[in-house]
Amino acid sequence: MLSLKVILDRLKGQGISARLVGDENCAIVRVAGLLQAGQGDITFLNNPRFKSLLNDVEASAIIVKATDSDQLSTNHIIVENPHVAYAHVAGWLYTTNDAEAGIHSSAVIAASSHIHTTASIGPLCVIEADVVIGAGCQIGPGCIIGQGVEIAENSRLLANVTVCHGANIGCRVILHPGVVIGADGFGLANNDGRWVKVPQIGGVVLSDDVEVGANTTIDRGAIEDTKIGRGVKLDNQIQIGHNVHIGEHTAIAACTAVAGSTHIGQHCAIGGCVGIVGHLEITDNVTITGMSHVSQSITETGVYSSGTPLETSSQWHRNFVRMKQLDDMVRRLKKLENQLHANENQDEIK
Amino acid sequence: MLSLKVILDRLKGQGISARLVGDENCAIVRVAGLLQAGQGDITFLNNPRFKSLLNDVEASAIIVKATDSDQLSTNHIIVENPHVAYAHVAGWLYTTNDAEAGIHSSAVIAASSHIHTTASIGPLCVIEADVVIGAGCQIGPGCIIGQGVEIAENSRLLANVTVCHGANIGCRVILHPGVVIGADGFGLANNDGRWVKVPQIGGVVLSDDVEVGANTTIDRGAIEDTKIGRGVKLDNQIQIGHNVHIGEHTAIAACTAVAGSTHIGQHCAIGGCVGIVGHLEITDNVTITGMSHVSQSITETGVYSSGTPLETSSQWHRNFVRMKQLDDMVRRLKKLENQLHANENQDEIK
Amino acid sequence: MLSLKVILDRLKGQGISARLVGDENCAIVRVAGLLQAGQGDITFLNNPRFKSLLNDVEASAIIVKATDSDQLSTNHIIVENPHVAYAHVAGWLYTTNDAEAGIHSSAVIAASSHIHTTASIGPLCVIEADVVIGAGCQIGPGCIIGQGVEIAENSRLLANVTVCHGANIGCRVILHPGVVIGADGFGLANNDGRWVKVPQIGGVVLSDDVEVGANTTIDRGAIEDTKIGRGVKLDNQIQIGHNVHIGEHTAIAACTAVAGSTHIGQHCAIGGCVGIVGHLEITDNVTITGMSHVSQSITETGVYSSGTPLETSSQWHRNFVRMKQLDDMVRRLKKLENQLHANENQDEIK
Repeated sequence: MLSLKVILDRLKGQGISARLVGDENCAIVRVAGLLQAGQGDITFLNNPRFKSLLNDVEASAIIVKATDSDQLSTNHIIVENPHVAYAHVAGWLYTTNDAEAGIHSSAVIAASSHIHTTASIGPLCVIEADVVIGAGCQIGPGCIIGQGVEIAENSRLLANVTVCHGANIGCRVILHPGVVIGADGFGLANNDGRWVKVPQIGGVVLSDDVEVGANTTIDRGAIEDTKIGRGVKLDNQIQIGHNVHIGEHTAIAACTAVAGSTHIGQHCAIGGCVGIVGHLEITDNVTITGMSHVSQSITETGVYSSGTPLETSSQWHRNFVRMKQLDDMVRRLKKLENQLHANENQDEIK
Repeated sequence: MLSLKVILDRLKGQGISARLVGDENCAIVRVAGLLQAGQGDITFLNNPRFKSLLNDVEASAIIVKATDSDQLSTNHIIVENPHVAYAHVAGWLYTTNDAEAGIHSSAVIAASSHIHTTASIGPLCVIEADVVIGAGCQIGPGCIIGQGVEIAENSRLLANVTVCHGANIGCRVILHPGVVIGADGFGLANNDGRWVKVPQIGGVVLSDDVEVGANTTIDRGAIEDTKIGRGVKLDNQIQIGHNVHIGEHTAIAACTAVAGSTHIGQHCAIGGCVGIVGHLEITDNVTITGMSHVSQSITETGVYSSGTPLETSSQWHRNFVRMKQLDDMVRRLKKLENQLHANENQDEIK
Repeated sequence: MLSLKVILDRLKGQGISARLVGDENCAIVRVAGLLQAGQGDITFLNNPRFKSLLNDVEASAIIVKATDSDQLSTNHIIVENPHVAYAHVAGWLYTTNDAEAGIHSSAVIAASSHIHTTASIGPLCVIEADVVIGAGCQIGPGCIIGQGVEIAENSRLLANVTVCHGANIGCRVILHPGVVIGADGFGLANNDGRWVKVPQIGGVVLSDDVEVGANTTIDRGAIEDTKIGRGVKLDNQIQIGHNVHIGEHTAIAACTAVAGSTHIGQHCAIGGCVGIVGHLEITDNVTITGMSHVSQSITETGVYSSGTPLETSSQWHRNFVRMKQLDDMVRRLKKLENQLHANENQDEIK
């Protein structure tokens, strides 16, 4: 339970300019969605589409923008970015139980590893030789940390995470279950039709504040390192190939694949199920919508898309076969234009 | 080994109307494909395309529809749905060894967990505090069950499955290896270009008879729950975002991704590699073919598709560039139509 | 450290025709990229695009083709295929520490399993009944090997790999972390709108020299076996459905999905994020570019593609809506052609 007064003070403590309208002693125990919220709940309005619903909200308090506070009788906190303020408030109300510091007796720990006394190593983890794990780290059950891996302060590996030898992981990194960091990249040399494995001897670096979703894979570099920049957020089941660089504060939605050696800039927002070819350069502040196919470098900031519209299958079949005739269609169109132009000239001559 | 008589009786016991033509003492030891089957094998014919092959089948018995039994000299069982009958028969002939009830000595079990005496907990599992595991459950090796998870009767987690804190799993649910249930959804608030993590405090509910394929991920809700309805079947490597609802008896093929807050109806059949955008409503009985991109709600039952045809790369390149000219093509076509119409009117006037 | 003389001799030992120009005593300690290489490094030139950079290379030695050796003053080794030669050299310089033979005390091993004395079983592995593990195999931490699995000589399972009951794995196979071999295929029979699970009783066979990337899943067969041919290389997060056959020396890039019962030929090269429908036949030596949708069998060797071009979203929206009008466009075009042809005939008649 937190009073609105305490919430207001803590938001200010985060450097957020916040103002309270209403009862500062009001007790908040939960967060809830705009229409599900009731007594004891705090909620937020971010999307102006839902402004008309504000009068129906039964929450004890709402976080809003100044422009939405006009005729609002419910307790409310006015901030510039209600979503960000909500994120902080939810974090305070739902503190996850920190695991106890110390090493679970069932974990298998190499003698040469260095585990900070304030770190927590869960049951049935494997920590190989020469690993360094920093202060406040929480390594959940079943995680496997390969030889020579370094993990800086306050990072959390949830469960069943695999970090391969030599990977370098920053502060406050979060790796969700099933993540694999630093498996071999797909390096093959073709020897008369047979594939020879090319040793993958590069590393992988995850900078501070990176978050990686469940079952996402980030390969180690072929010779140099794969690099994930500060504050990058990766959703579930993403594949990052060897030698990829991702710039700071870029976010990528689920199931997107980035092929080897592609460099993605800072502050990009990439949708789900996007396929990005290898060896490309994508500049900063690029947005790519879901399921796009990126086969060329993107040199200008902007919003990009590809893909086809959903139709009933019977309509789609009719249009689908025509896609193979596009070039032919343009040629026929051109021919018609020329003919018509010739006819008109002839008419004029007549 | 089962005699055809026993098989017939058991099918009837399942409420299936079945009739045997042939030797009821014939011994069946295996199932097999239509053309691979031999002595001791039972097979089935579902697809009328293969009816002409029936005379070549060397199985000891065949499960068929009434319409395929006419001139069939082999022993056969006549049912309305041979595929369903086959599924039952195969299940009886290939009983998987149930794991022994009890907790393997290498598993790490919190004292506050409640594990039914008839449940089986495999080696190297981790069961955290306040977990409830029902009668007849089989938790395979290496599974990690987070704090407060409840699993009802007769569910099976194969191996290396991760179920995060608080998830709620029904009866007879099957989770294949590498599945992750209840990891955090991709909730981010943008604070001047930097991403602030939005705590994911909702839960995840898997109803009775759900099956989830290998390495599929189902995220917990942001505030409310992610909900997978009764009898839903998910193939491998599917991604289900936070707050998604999937209606009863819907099936989804491999590698499909459903973004956050989308609601999918009952009895839908969704192909593989489909990308479904967030915050959509898809009604009941919708079929979506493989690799489609769903970017708008679907309000009418039907079959839907999108996507482009495969061509030789050289042909494709020619058509590919034309896709960027489609709007221009329509305008040129319109102009030609107008010109021709004007010319004809002029001809008439002449 | 290896001298160029030793490297030359070892390449010859691999059956590679190699010639050294320069100082055979030169000491090589590392491999490096063409432009990053310095003293003690060996690098290679494969792509003729970079030939002009050869004079700027500061490596101690370069592996090149004969055609690139003309004016090269740096020590160099001339071979036909520098990439293949590089792969060997890198392997010699970066020998990964082989795990010690023997079974880690924390592993859980069924009494009826047969583990070769030269094999290594890592910490917290589970080896179920009747498993056979051959000479020189290295089973990394957290791997789970189901009942009756057979793994031939010198295969390596990196970490957290799951191999389900009865799978058959050849020599020198590499399975990266999170791989799942032999989970149930997606076999369902529809019984009046409800799905009945069809038991998946087939096996899965991985032939010699197969490599499987992180979090890739290969399902067991429905009745017969799923078969991955000799030398096949699969990248990360690939899905291989039940009863799929993949021919020898085919390589598939990340996130591609192959639906059930499709047969892919030998020496194919399939890009990333490709979706391949079930029950198809793809012949030998087929190349399919990334993100293609394969919905029909491919009977002729060649290079195939599908997909749409990336555009700015505003341009794309204009063209996107036109894709639904393609069939209509062709009809309008045809009508115009007929009209114009009729007019011209009329003109002639006039």
